[in-house]
Amino acid sequence: MPVINFLLDSEKIEFTCDSGTNLMEAVVEAGIELKAVCGGAGSCGKCQVIVKEGEVNQLAQGSLSPDKLKQGYVLACQTEVIEDVRIEIPPESRLSEHQIFVAEEAEDEELLTEKEIQIAEKIELDPLYKRVDLELDEPTLVNNASDLDRLYTGLNQRHDWPGLTTSLSVMEDLASHLRDNNWQTQVSLALANDNYEVSELNAPDYEQPDYGIAVDIGTTTMVLELINLETGESVATSGLYNKQGRYGDDVIGRINYAKQNDDGLDKLHQAVIDTINELIDDVVNKESIDYADIKTAVFAGNTTMSHLFLGIDPNNIRLEPYIPTVNFIPPLQAEELGIKIKEEGWIHYLPGVSSFVGGDITSGVLATEIGKREEITLFIDIGTNGELVLGNQDWLITCSCSAGPAFEGGGIEYGMRAMSGAIEFFEIDEDTYEIKYSTINARPPIGVCGSGLIKLIATLNEVGIINRSGKFESDFEHERLREREYETEFVLVWEEQAGIDEDIVITENDIKNLLRSKGAIYAGIRMMLQNMSLTEDFIEEVLVAGGFGNYINIDDAKKIGLLPDLPNDKFKFVGNTSLKGAKMSLLSKEKFDQVNEIANKMTYLELSAEDQSQEFMDEFVSAQFIPHTDLSLFPSVTETNSDD
Amino acid sequence: MPVINFLLDSEKIEFTCDSGTNLMEAVVEAGIELKAVCGGAGSCGKCQVIVKEGEVNQLAQGSLSPDKLKQGYVLACQTEVIEDVRIEIPPESRLSEHQIFVAEEAEDEELLTEKEIQIAEKIELDPLYKRVDLELDEPTLVNNASDLDRLYTGLNQRHDWPGLTTSLSVMEDLASHLRDNNWQTQVSLALANDNYEVSELNAPDYEQPDYGIAVDIGTTTMVLELINLETGESVATSGLYNKQGRYGDDVIGRINYAKQNDDGLDKLHQAVIDTINELIDDVVNKESIDYADIKTAVFAGNTTMSHLFLGIDPNNIRLEPYIPTVNFIPPLQAEELGIKIKEEGWIHYLPGVSSFVGGDITSGVLATEIGKREEITLFIDIGTNGELVLGNQDWLITCSCSAGPAFEGGGIEYGMRAMSGAIEFFEIDEDTYEIKYSTINARPPIGVCGSGLIKLIATLNEVGIINRSGKFESDFEHERLREREYETEFVLVWEEQAGIDEDIVITENDIKNLLRSKGAIYAGIRMMLQNMSLTEDFIEEVLVAGGFGNYINIDDAKKIGLLPDLPNDKFKFVGNTSLKGAKMSLLSKEKFDQVNEIANKMTYLELSAEDQSQEFMDEFVSAQFIPHTDLSLFPSVTETNSDD
Repeated sequence: MPVINFLLDSEKIEFTCDSGTNLMEAVVEAGIELKAVCGGAGSCGKCQVIVKEGEVNQLAQGSLSPDKLKQGYVLACQTEVIEDVRIEIPPESRLSEHQIFVAEEAEDEELLTEKEIQIAEKIELDPLYKRVDLELDEPTLVNNASDLDRLYTGLNQRHDWPGLTTSLSVMEDLASHLRDNNWQTQVSLALANDNYEVSELNAPDYEQPDYGIAVDIGTTTMVLELINLETGESVATSGLYNKQGRYGDDVIGRINYAKQNDDGLDKLHQAVIDTINELIDDVVNKESIDYADIKTAVFAGNTTMSHLFLGIDPNNIRLEPYIPTVNFIPPLQAEELGIKIKEEGWIHYLPGVSSFVGGDITSGVLATEIGKREEITLFIDIGTNGELVLGNQDWLITCSCSAGPAFEGGGIEYGMRAMSGAIEFFEIDEDTYEIKYSTINARPPIGVCGSGLIKLIATLNEVGIINRSGKFESDFEHERLREREYETEFVLVWEEQAGIDEDIVITENDIKNLLRSKGAIYAGIRMMLQNMSLTEDFIEEVLVAGGFGNYINIDDAKKIGLLPDLPNDKFKFVGNTSLKGAKMSLLSKEKFDQVNEIANKMTYLELSAEDQSQEFMDEFVSAQFIPHTDLSLFPSVTETNSDD
Repeated sequence: MPVINFLLDSEKIEFTCDSGTNLMEAVVEAGIELKAVCGGAGSCGKCQVIVKEGEVNQLAQGSLSPDKLKQGYVLACQTEVIEDVRIEIPPESRLSEHQIFVAEEAEDEELLTEKEIQIAEKIELDPLYKRVDLELDEPTLVNNASDLDRLYTGLNQRHDWPGLTTSLSVMEDLASHLRDNNWQTQVSLALANDNYEVSELNAPDYEQPDYGIAVDIGTTTMVLELINLETGESVATSGLYNKQGRYGDDVIGRINYAKQNDDGLDKLHQAVIDTINELIDDVVNKESIDYADIKTAVFAGNTTMSHLFLGIDPNNIRLEPYIPTVNFIPPLQAEELGIKIKEEGWIHYLPGVSSFVGGDITSGVLATEIGKREEITLFIDIGTNGELVLGNQDWLITCSCSAGPAFEGGGIEYGMRAMSGAIEFFEIDEDTYEIKYSTINARPPIGVCGSGLIKLIATLNEVGIINRSGKFESDFEHERLREREYETEFVLVWEEQAGIDEDIVITENDIKNLLRSKGAIYAGIRMMLQNMSLTEDFIEEVLVAGGFGNYINIDDAKKIGLLPDLPNDKFKFVGNTSLKGAKMSLLSKEKFDQVNEIANKMTYLELSAEDQSQEFMDEFVSAQFIPHTDLSLFPSVTETNSDD
């Protein structure tokens, strides 16, 4: 059997496989996290590795340049291993360790920094798993109710719990527990299916705290908070890349992987469960608690994630008319999904609205309370799709624009997520076109992340390198601007300064993709406003959630026409509201009920529906300019940028 | 290791065991059903076997006569095997094959025969598992609800099903099922926990019928009916002895067994599950259906049976103040209990009222509809305990009298259940005292069953052999009446005519036990009447359920003072109402809800409670005469028997 020697930045991994094994599969099996935006379809070109020794069987070369082919580059997903080989995994092809950016202080006023939502102060604690102290009357020949009826009577004297149920395991212990503890007990109640279940009985002096977890299942990253259910405190946090990343970078890639591979759905399902369990391992170890001390869990994530989490085929999500199997997911028990908390612990997944507006968005609406305000708020979550919500206490409208993964690095030749070595800031000298940049963790640059790309487009336009259509100015000449096959590219970082063995460039095609992405989002905003017969002026606040790393430069975002031209003080970066809403739901039955109401209340605007699509297409086309064809929509930008 | 050769009527079984193995355990392991009234405590003396060869270690001899000891008789439960032995199992110690006596026609007018309850005519079919045909609108970009919401909307347009839930396995299939069948489907709904669950999806042309089972879990015998849920028809019936019988004959014996043996509870639990599964095997084979075609089940049984069915320790049932762990049992899924129907099928156990009035009685009240009538009905179920219900549409009172197992043969030297060879009828010549008898299946007599015992006591008193106190008349002399150690006995069948190698006798002590049993029941009736300030005259109908074999002679029952002295036409034998109520509940959600209402509505009269016990004791003592100390309570009996 062939032996593969993987060469990584700082380590070597030896791996034996059958002849004919797909190299991508081998990489994954060997525990190496490789980029795979398209889910192994051979189309994204992100899984490039270098064959240093030995022969491989190349099924396709994708868009690899002749230069790279000469150096031994192959697409891992299109390569079969047939003999012993040495494979180098270049850093730009790897998913690095994830960094969680939460509530970091920004130094610059014009950066939109996260406004921390103080959950513990905002809600009255009424967690989905709670303990009640009871002192029951001892039974007599006259007062001779069954033990369970006695328990229910005691509970209902405290509070009305309609539809109480009890698991068989609790019933098995009930009689001896009550008698051993002289009819004093701590009863744990867990929210199950619209009702509470008697989930555990403990002695009156039992003091071990109960924990719950709130988990944001992002397509890219997953974050878990371990929460003390009695105090509401977050006692530990852990973040990881979603292990599904090896099967596709975005939801469409993963849906394709599930469709095209016999065990694809199983693998994707197992990958998200494995990631969750690793996050649980981490917080359990940090806090030295038992898995069974975690009594319940609330998950939030998009609709594809919910389907894969449950092991339900997500294929119809990507097929018109884009119908998910389920939006409101009934609670399940942990062991049914293989999640490593208390086996009978109830798992709740916050409800979604449609195939492309999921539980992460309803969770965000809950966390930001935009459905409780008199004023109209615009909520924007930019990831692969831009999910938008507009509304107030009376109405909520939502839509999703297929923005594409440009701001997460997808479809951008040197685009990448906000990881070490990603350029997040640019400055270009107006005269010399000298470029200054800064990278995450000050590592040698290997690509550009979302906030860096926004800054880059704004700056390229500002200094006159690209025009309002995103094309390089015809009269611009510089050694950084150069032609290549079917493409014009602009060098951002020369190879000597780069953390990779090549120049880091941006192409005209990259810019086109970015303008499409930002145009889709802006057009979505316009469509929601028009459907409500409103204009931008009615928006009292714009809340930007999620995905961009730790900050976004609001002026740049307005300059490129990604965000509407409203005063800076109307914008707030609200961070991971998916996680926050999950935490609020975990800690408050009232909030948990509210998120269901939110999902029911939200009107989903399907932008590809007949009555919307032409109008959307017009808006979309108009928005693919910097900042827009209609400059009157961006008065402040036009003022400062009047020389354009 | 010692080898045991078991000698049975017609077969030999060889069994190898460890030295020191309890002989009773070995018998059970070898698959032989042995009587064990006391649950292996050594007190009932029913598990007699004969050591034909080899030495055993006898821990106790119990009440074995010197004669029997000489013949090699031992009590299996008090014997350890230490070397190779040959053990004969005499027929009187065995539990024979069970015969189900249902709705047999009686020839004699004075016999109380079963009044068949015509369930199918009585109820509107609305089973706990049902199919709904749906034709759903195909989704569009505008009509874009999730598949599950679409299904729920379709269901709720037919009927309001609050709190619908769906299992994960159904959700996994939902999308492809709806699309493969062009949005036409047959949806199966199962009653779960006060709500319905979408349990299965089938193609619109699927025609395989759904089945349910109704099961009466009797302490002694268990009966199962396989029911077509669409037609309400009973398509197969099967009956078996409860395999728990090997661990004790009555509920107290079983509770003791569970208490005294480490794995006693597990064994009892497994025994009842095994019996159920064997019954299921039988009907599944008879009808050539799949186990998974049985979609749901309703069980009825007494409170000890419900606890053992669930695997809950029943010990507090027998300890003052007699508190069961649970009366209202939440539904469970079949696989949780290991019951061989559709794995996710819901199992319902009808609710009980107290430790000694269980789901078999509420089921009986449902089946007989005594809670719906204007007139007052008395319901009597005589088994080990006499369970009594009195009431009408406005009130229901119930009590349980520890009648002891006399009418089932317990505590009666030659008492037995209504099996082959049991004497069920006696005639004694007034002059010659010649005895005629008839046995079940006309087999040589081996003992006397309940109806036989009632006839016997009545006749012995009538012909002047015993007096009203149940003692042999001091001036009665006959070869059949003879003294033995501490006892007087009367020979019913001489050894030559008997199916066993000894005379079949009735002792003064047997008669005392029978009078205690009948006295307890009659005293219970009196207590209920007194608590409601009523007399016998108010009783419009007396319904006798369960346990006596296939008939009871009503005149004899009145003569001995077991039943109140009311006109014969007021009595009806209603058979196995526990099973009938279970069947009704299975076929009608309304009936299922009613049985819960019945359990809530019934007032339990605890006869040992302080305010009742002295009065009950007085009634009990007065009732231990033939027919009673107060003859005015039995005017018709006293008339015909005025010579006594």
